[in-house]
Amino acid sequence: MSASIHPAGPHPIESIVVTPVAFRDLPLLNTVGVHEPYALRAIVEVTTTSGFTGLGETYGDAPHIARLELVARQLVGVDIFNIGELRRRITATLRGDTTRGGHGMSGMVTGSSTPDRVLSPFDVAALDIQGKIVGRPVSDLLGGAVRSEIPFSGYLFYKWAGHPGADDDAWGAALDADGIVAQAKTMVDAYGFSALKLKGGVLAPEQEVEAILALRRAFPDHPLRLDPNAAWTVETAVGVGRALEGVLEYLEDPTPSIAGMAAVRREVPMPLATNMCVVSFDDVPEAVREGAVDVILSDHHFWGGLRRSQGLAAITETFGLGLSMHSNSHLGISLAAMVHLAAATPNLDYACDTHWPWKLESEDVIVPGVLCFDRGAVAVPTTPGLGVELDRDRLAVLHEQYLACGLRNRDDTGYMQSIRPGYELVSPRW
Amino acid sequence: MSASIHPAGPHPIESIVVTPVAFRDLPLLNTVGVHEPYALRAIVEVTTTSGFTGLGETYGDAPHIARLELVARQLVGVDIFNIGELRRRITATLRGDTTRGGHGMSGMVTGSSTPDRVLSPFDVAALDIQGKIVGRPVSDLLGGAVRSEIPFSGYLFYKWAGHPGADDDAWGAALDADGIVAQAKTMVDAYGFSALKLKGGVLAPEQEVEAILALRRAFPDHPLRLDPNAAWTVETAVGVGRALEGVLEYLEDPTPSIAGMAAVRREVPMPLATNMCVVSFDDVPEAVREGAVDVILSDHHFWGGLRRSQGLAAITETFGLGLSMHSNSHLGISLAAMVHLAAATPNLDYACDTHWPWKLESEDVIVPGVLCFDRGAVAVPTTPGLGVELDRDRLAVLHEQYLACGLRNRDDTGYMQSIRPGYELVSPRW
Repeated sequence: MSASIHPAGPHPIESIVVTPVAFRDLPLLNTVGVHEPYALRAIVEVTTTSGFTGLGETYGDAPHIARLELVARQLVGVDIFNIGELRRRITATLRGDTTRGGHGMSGMVTGSSTPDRVLSPFDVAALDIQGKIVGRPVSDLLGGAVRSEIPFSGYLFYKWAGHPGADDDAWGAALDADGIVAQAKTMVDAYGFSALKLKGGVLAPEQEVEAILALRRAFPDHPLRLDPNAAWTVETAVGVGRALEGVLEYLEDPTPSIAGMAAVRREVPMPLATNMCVVSFDDVPEAVREGAVDVILSDHHFWGGLRRSQGLAAITETFGLGLSMHSNSHLGISLAAMVHLAAATPNLDYACDTHWPWKLESEDVIVPGVLCFDRGAVAVPTTPGLGVELDRDRLAVLHEQYLACGLRNRDDTGYMQSIRPGYELVSPRW
Repeated sequence: MSASIHPAGPHPIESIVVTPVAFRDLPLLNTVGVHEPYALRAIVEVTTTSGFTGLGETYGDAPHIARLELVARQLVGVDIFNIGELRRRITATLRGDTTRGGHGMSGMVTGSSTPDRVLSPFDVAALDIQGKIVGRPVSDLLGGAVRSEIPFSGYLFYKWAGHPGADDDAWGAALDADGIVAQAKTMVDAYGFSALKLKGGVLAPEQEVEAILALRRAFPDHPLRLDPNAAWTVETAVGVGRALEGVLEYLEDPTPSIAGMAAVRREVPMPLATNMCVVSFDDVPEAVREGAVDVILSDHHFWGGLRRSQGLAAITETFGLGLSMHSNSHLGISLAAMVHLAAATPNLDYACDTHWPWKLESEDVIVPGVLCFDRGAVAVPTTPGLGVELDRDRLAVLHEQYLACGLRNRDDTGYMQSIRPGYELVSPRW
């Protein structure tokens, strides 16, 4: 904090810059297709008239960026401590919004709240600035860190050896149980994760059961999760659930819809988790009424930022639900925000998800050196704000990459169809 | 903020002082008896090693004070920004607590969470200090004020002309509809309230209906509420509710229990509110499941402080419930905390309750001049922290009054029985 700037002074927003970026991604398979060669994100920089700058990170899909730009103009002049007013203006600005898409998750999560998705990076940037102004980490502004390091789970994917037409990547192929176990060993050796999650919905359910059982043998003490992204019917999901009794920490989104999840939950022995059928506050009452899930995966990118995600935590605690944390492909600003939120959420019950290992170390928008993984966990930054600093050279590189790559919306399905013309989107698939 | 103290430095708690106080109260009638000549409160002063002091205010009943003292020893050394750690230690310290009583509400609210009740003044004091350290009002630490003034309702009571054996007080008697209307006129003239609440459960239900109808005639545009503190059977409550169709903004706690409230709610036309059957997070799931209420009255004194009360606000918003705010006899520190919370709670749907008019202006523990009522509302302080300052002389006077008055637990029923030996506690009474 500059000695010449008093925190009590006004800190209105002077300008907002939204920069789309692209970073290289690997051919990770899921039930809607395969990750494209680049993942898209938007970096939001908020600057106050008092000279403070804060960072947010969100989806990079074109309709989402258009909404960010639309609301950004309405936020100029708002005091950076007034997140309530940011939310009010964003909600009002988007009231007539009828644009579609831009969820950033290739159709896997479509029911999230548009205002909450748009609010998120501004909430994070505001808290980043607040922390810098007052000289405290964001976790302190969220009620204080109840843990100093945040455990993450190793996120395993079936994948091709490389993108078609390109060289094999460093991870190589993982297209069966042996491949997944080898991938897990590499990832655990490198990051020290003490929990593992397999993205399923790619192979036939019995092959994915086989992969989980192989992981259990290779990692007898690691909690294991399986997430087929609602690829199964209720009947298939119940079969898998029973086959994996005593093996899974939780089964995530085995089947679509609250009704489907409730039907599965009555028949399987392990907790059911979701980041697909409960993705906004509007979904919560029905999910509670129907007894659809045991665990909700929070995600500040679609639950309205860090402060609103604390509201979700109050809800899960009150209703006896578990709380975990979802991820999709992200950079360091998002990781910092996730870490601060996790630190200040007493009832976070599980290791958080992250796609971090799938990103090239050389590609990010923050100055390297913070947010390192040690024994599968990331230490909570104790410096002011988020604790990360924008690297303008790296930002420029990833923005150039965005301009050059030609991708404007995440489309795992379209990319898969460009490679395998007969590929069809089917849900549930088995 | 002192220029020599950097907010980023450590601010561990050095000491906590709990001071019981008593202030003069009037013979306000309710369904469990009558207010005693003094109301009890406890003032909590938290000091950090860096020299900052913060204030909290809570119930003054002896068992509650004993718990405050018990946990206070365990909180020394905790960083003032870490409310999560305060909560953790309080919960751990009280785990084996089997003491009873000390709810501060003379038996009308007994199911609230002991750890949340104990946490509350420490949460408020911590936020007061955080605000002073960083130079921002508490509302900013709660997400920012979305309103600059907080509307309150005028809280009407049946009352005797004065305490037995004492002179009549300035308000005089109010023992029928005319008396209530006269009281309302005096109160609205003095404070400008634009909503009115009648504490019922004192006279026969038909007399209280008559009083509400008289208020409606005298104040055609004021929202009106009636709160008999669960004095009625379901049948009686339904009768009152139907008799007051189109007249009440909401009917508060007409009958005991979630089941009772749900039964009434199915039969009456107006919203039902509660601060008796939903008084802790543990009560929420059943209340939602049974459809027991439309409106929850928050109260940071029993919902675990300001941050936890924001969790309650997230719950009511998510489940489509209204949110209002409860009060019992309180001083200026509590009023300041209520005002900051209300300011930072977008989905606060109603004017807040306050007993403020029943307190002598001369009796408080804060330096006078802030928290003035104008047109029924209190402006949200914009100075650092709560915006109120302890007046040590006035604190000393009220503490002496506590020592001298002999009261150690609020007991409206016992006081009534001392005056009317045949008085019996009956619930429901009609």
